[in-house]
Amino acid sequence: MAPRTAPDPARRNERSRSAVLTAAYELVSEVGFGRLTIEAIAARAGVGKQTIYRWWPSKGAVVFDAFLVVNGHEGHFALPDTGDLAADLKAVLRLSADDLADPALDRTYRALSTEILSDPVVQAEYRSRLLDPLLDVTRDRLRAARTAGDLPADTDLDFAVELLYGPLYYRWMHQLGPLDHDHADRLVDACLRALRPADTAESPGPTVGPTAAPGPTGPSGA
Amino acid sequence: MAPRTAPDPARRNERSRSAVLTAAYELVSEVGFGRLTIEAIAARAGVGKQTIYRWWPSKGAVVFDAFLVVNGHEGHFALPDTGDLAADLKAVLRLSADDLADPALDRTYRALSTEILSDPVVQAEYRSRLLDPLLDVTRDRLRAARTAGDLPADTDLDFAVELLYGPLYYRWMHQLGPLDHDHADRLVDACLRALRPADTAESPGPTVGPTAAPGPTGPSGA
Repeated sequence: MAPRTAPDPARRNERSRSAVLTAAYELVSEVGFGRLTIEAIAARAGVGKQTIYRWWPSKGAVVFDAFLVVNGHEGHFALPDTGDLAADLKAVLRLSADDLADPALDRTYRALSTEILSDPVVQAEYRSRLLDPLLDVTRDRLRAARTAGDLPADTDLDFAVELLYGPLYYRWMHQLGPLDHDHADRLVDACLRALRPADTAESPGPTVGPTAAPGPTGPSGA
Repeated sequence: MAPRTAPDPARRNERSRSAVLTAAYELVSEVGFGRLTIEAIAARAGVGKQTIYRWWPSKGAVVFDAFLVVNGHEGHFALPDTGDLAADLKAVLRLSADDLADPALDRTYRALSTEILSDPVVQAEYRSRLLDPLLDVTRDRLRAARTAGDLPADTDLDFAVELLYGPLYYRWMHQLGPLDHDHADRLVDACLRALRPADTAESPGPTVGPTAAPGPTGPSGA
């Protein structure tokens, strides 16, 4: 029999944390966010309720942490910057398409989306923990492209990210077609054609046509 | 006292039908589709349950009829064809933006969307009664533009309608910004730039670039 070593509290904590997040992630897809309880998460994870409350202030906090960790984001999103804007955007849209096409994530995300639609608290949590970080890093990449002259100087970054992710999300939500890499690539190409007016090559800058009216630009915008 | 005339059965039927649809529409926003009952609709409309069952086969049928009638579609969607593609698309996107920005419709549509996300039967009913008819008339208008040479000959109509409606829906779903006519107009202009590659003026037709790979084209597609 192998000699027993003293338990490592840090490692045990990490195991418990991981078990809680996995349990939360699984349970959302099984029962939905509304019927999910801290008790059920604790029972499945094999930890006490007080362990969960020590680390997370609310059910929403556990669930959104679970989403970030289980999907490999570990609390932060990142977008490559290889200098090739189209390639970088395709990389992130392909990942998004892969996520939405994954049956387990699809189920979980649909369960969560019903709560996002109906509960302003969950909506706010989703915005601050998942959506805004994703849109922020995407805006960062587009801003760098704008600075580098790859996009017109007056590109509206908020408008641009909605143009990029909106059609993918719409296709997923209403199950209108396959969510594959080919589709992701076509969306990026279409989005870049929309953002780069035909006359940009000759005269970049303010001549973006009749749509250059000031757009909605929130605090996280340009 | 005014002389009493014999009751007009057709007019009475019309009144009852209208009362049922109004009640169904109101109740969805109040209790959600899941908790809505035929009994509750009948009670609020002041008709018997059997009256509802005589005219509609299911709860979903009543609710989606209510959506069509209360929103003025009366069972069919229509898109203008003035010959000016951008103007026609802006007309329909402005209407969609107005609908989504209306607080009462927003509430009802959010309640319904939770069911669309979680119940395949409701999703199918939504597709066949509301979404597909809207996308169909939009594809019809884009097809006419393609025939007229206003869009490249290989324009993928399914891809195009998702590009058009997706970003508007995304902004509504996640409350990312105002849903006004200016935004609707900018989306149409962006969509048309995406669909009309820079070189279309010189060489319309097959030279649509690397994104011209065959796209998903469902039975309702091109």
